[in-house]
Amino acid sequence: MNAAASALHGQAIAQAPAPPPSPTSGVAPARVALLGTGTVGGAVLARLASWRGRAIGERLQLVHVANSRRAAADAGGLLPEHAATALAASELRSSLDTVADALRGDGARVVIDATASEAVAERHAQWLAQGIHVVTACKIGQGTSLARWRAIREACAAGRVGYGDSATVGAGLPLLRSLRELQAGGDRIHAIAGVLSGSLAWLFNHYDGMRPFSTLVRQARDAGYTEPDPRDDLSGEDVRRKLLILARAAGVALEAGEVQVSSLVPSELAILSAESVDAALPALDAPLRDRYAAAYKNGEKLRFIARLQDGAARVGLESLPADHPLAGGAGTDNKVAIWSDRYSEQPLVVQGPGAGAAVTAAGLLDDVLRLAH
Amino acid sequence: MNAAASALHGQAIAQAPAPPPSPTSGVAPARVALLGTGTVGGAVLARLASWRGRAIGERLQLVHVANSRRAAADAGGLLPEHAATALAASELRSSLDTVADALRGDGARVVIDATASEAVAERHAQWLAQGIHVVTACKIGQGTSLARWRAIREACAAGRVGYGDSATVGAGLPLLRSLRELQAGGDRIHAIAGVLSGSLAWLFNHYDGMRPFSTLVRQARDAGYTEPDPRDDLSGEDVRRKLLILARAAGVALEAGEVQVSSLVPSELAILSAESVDAALPALDAPLRDRYAAAYKNGEKLRFIARLQDGAARVGLESLPADHPLAGGAGTDNKVAIWSDRYSEQPLVVQGPGAGAAVTAAGLLDDVLRLAH
Repeated sequence: MNAAASALHGQAIAQAPAPPPSPTSGVAPARVALLGTGTVGGAVLARLASWRGRAIGERLQLVHVANSRRAAADAGGLLPEHAATALAASELRSSLDTVADALRGDGARVVIDATASEAVAERHAQWLAQGIHVVTACKIGQGTSLARWRAIREACAAGRVGYGDSATVGAGLPLLRSLRELQAGGDRIHAIAGVLSGSLAWLFNHYDGMRPFSTLVRQARDAGYTEPDPRDDLSGEDVRRKLLILARAAGVALEAGEVQVSSLVPSELAILSAESVDAALPALDAPLRDRYAAAYKNGEKLRFIARLQDGAARVGLESLPADHPLAGGAGTDNKVAIWSDRYSEQPLVVQGPGAGAAVTAAGLLDDVLRLAH
Repeated sequence: MNAAASALHGQAIAQAPAPPPSPTSGVAPARVALLGTGTVGGAVLARLASWRGRAIGERLQLVHVANSRRAAADAGGLLPEHAATALAASELRSSLDTVADALRGDGARVVIDATASEAVAERHAQWLAQGIHVVTACKIGQGTSLARWRAIREACAAGRVGYGDSATVGAGLPLLRSLRELQAGGDRIHAIAGVLSGSLAWLFNHYDGMRPFSTLVRQARDAGYTEPDPRDDLSGEDVRRKLLILARAAGVALEAGEVQVSSLVPSELAILSAESVDAALPALDAPLRDRYAAAYKNGEKLRFIARLQDGAARVGLESLPADHPLAGGAGTDNKVAIWSDRYSEQPLVVQGPGAGAAVTAAGLLDDVLRLAH
């Protein structure tokens, strides 16, 4: 087990809740840099602010906040509730080169990556090798090339630090943790299958073969369930990254191209400019109506599934028996089934909100607390 | 099991066991005493035996095995695959007084309680206070009086050891762990509701209001899903203990009597001797037919639910909307929903096999490895 995994396992079993170090214990609070102040970063600040005056809040000290333009730093600690104002007023230009310096001091050092930035992901391994824990909601670090994933794992070991990735898949639902715990207990993972996209979950929980699929897509987009360009969801590329992260955590070192992704976006829709997409959405309707009819005839349900089985990974629409553990479900919940030595017939199933700023921020801070304890 | 699940039966996708400390790390293996050699104890031995020659097996050394009559001990280590034979041939009478002595030596010390024994549960706190970790599948330790639960908690702190209870509820499903991790991340638990009995899950997943309920009960008993006397399941007393353990882990220190249990066993059935029960089972039928009819009329499902909500705990039959997270399900799976600060609208749901020797043994050994690392 590498340092990251062992740090994530290091939770006391019997104490509920895990007792924080008392203020008199002499343990310096962990020093935290938050990168990204969008909806997730904002929710991290709000959660930190809600901990003011609680023992849990004493364990972390926010010393650096940055978005893509500006940064604000205070070695003595920024108040989370004022960080956004401080940032807006700051004249400090944001630079990733300053982050390690800003974290200098006693105690554990942690970078929280709440960006969607390639440039930040590129730095993960470097920070880890410097002995700085990295906690991320961004899938670009571990969910893209195998080389980058390996660099992160090796840097964890070299820096004797942890990589907090709970928020990258399922926004902190116990998915990666369960995979790792099963393996720590001697199990081999046989298969993983899941609904890993809240928007695609919602679409197929609601699609009844009557109303055009494109109508539902517009509805999901207008409700904020999909990205502004719904092709980003319908392509399955986001799910590919999540499945890569799960597969690699399960011991299958797949290269990104080895995941077979069946996009829902027909080629005539894929080539359009963003402005032309809405009008062309009805191109989705006929193929899905046919697939729905075929599933319905067999008493089955259409679900957009990410699956790792027999060492192969694929993402796309599946027609599942109505009593399959992944066929039920409502709303935008993520739902993942794990088969292993002990769960060889009936899988372990974890279900719950797998997206949204609040659960993602909570998942990030879970990892920070665990790594920095 | 459906077709999709059985297709997953193939080989494990990869060997990704968490690498344990290398033999040269100088960490002595944990010394383990196994109490109870019934189906669960036997499965613990089988799992240990399957680890021979693997690094994970090097981390544990079995030095004492006992059932209620005999004991076998070897400070140099008993081979798990021969322990049952050694026990059968042993002339050593079993005594709980010898367990601590048998564990003496370097490394962590662990008692695994795979009994259903009141006398063993009574010793948990004492062993903990002596610095011996206790890992248990038996609910009598934490699921009965509040005083005993408190004694165990206090002994953990005094002995600086852990109490492994993963197998007491859901046979190692990530239930207690998830409750504790949510709290460690700053969340408060709002409510817990779940199907915590495999036999009652099976009964209400199959009951359709047509065939008599008593017929299903006999079928479940003959399949080994219920205890030999099905009243032990139908009374809800086993579920009471599990709910007490969950509630206490969630920070609600309930006394056993504070759980309101609505038994399914009518009083005329409750007073009968074990031999007379079978013939009298049809006394169950009319009341359940009525309840089923009422639920059906509302489009709802009957489920036997343990619920902690607003600080109150109750166990009994509930009529749930068809789209409720606990209304689905098949077979004997346990299924638990947890609401907390972050999961305030849609709960976190964990589902899977919550009983059976293999999963219980695996859950026990997970805890042993975690505590002894």
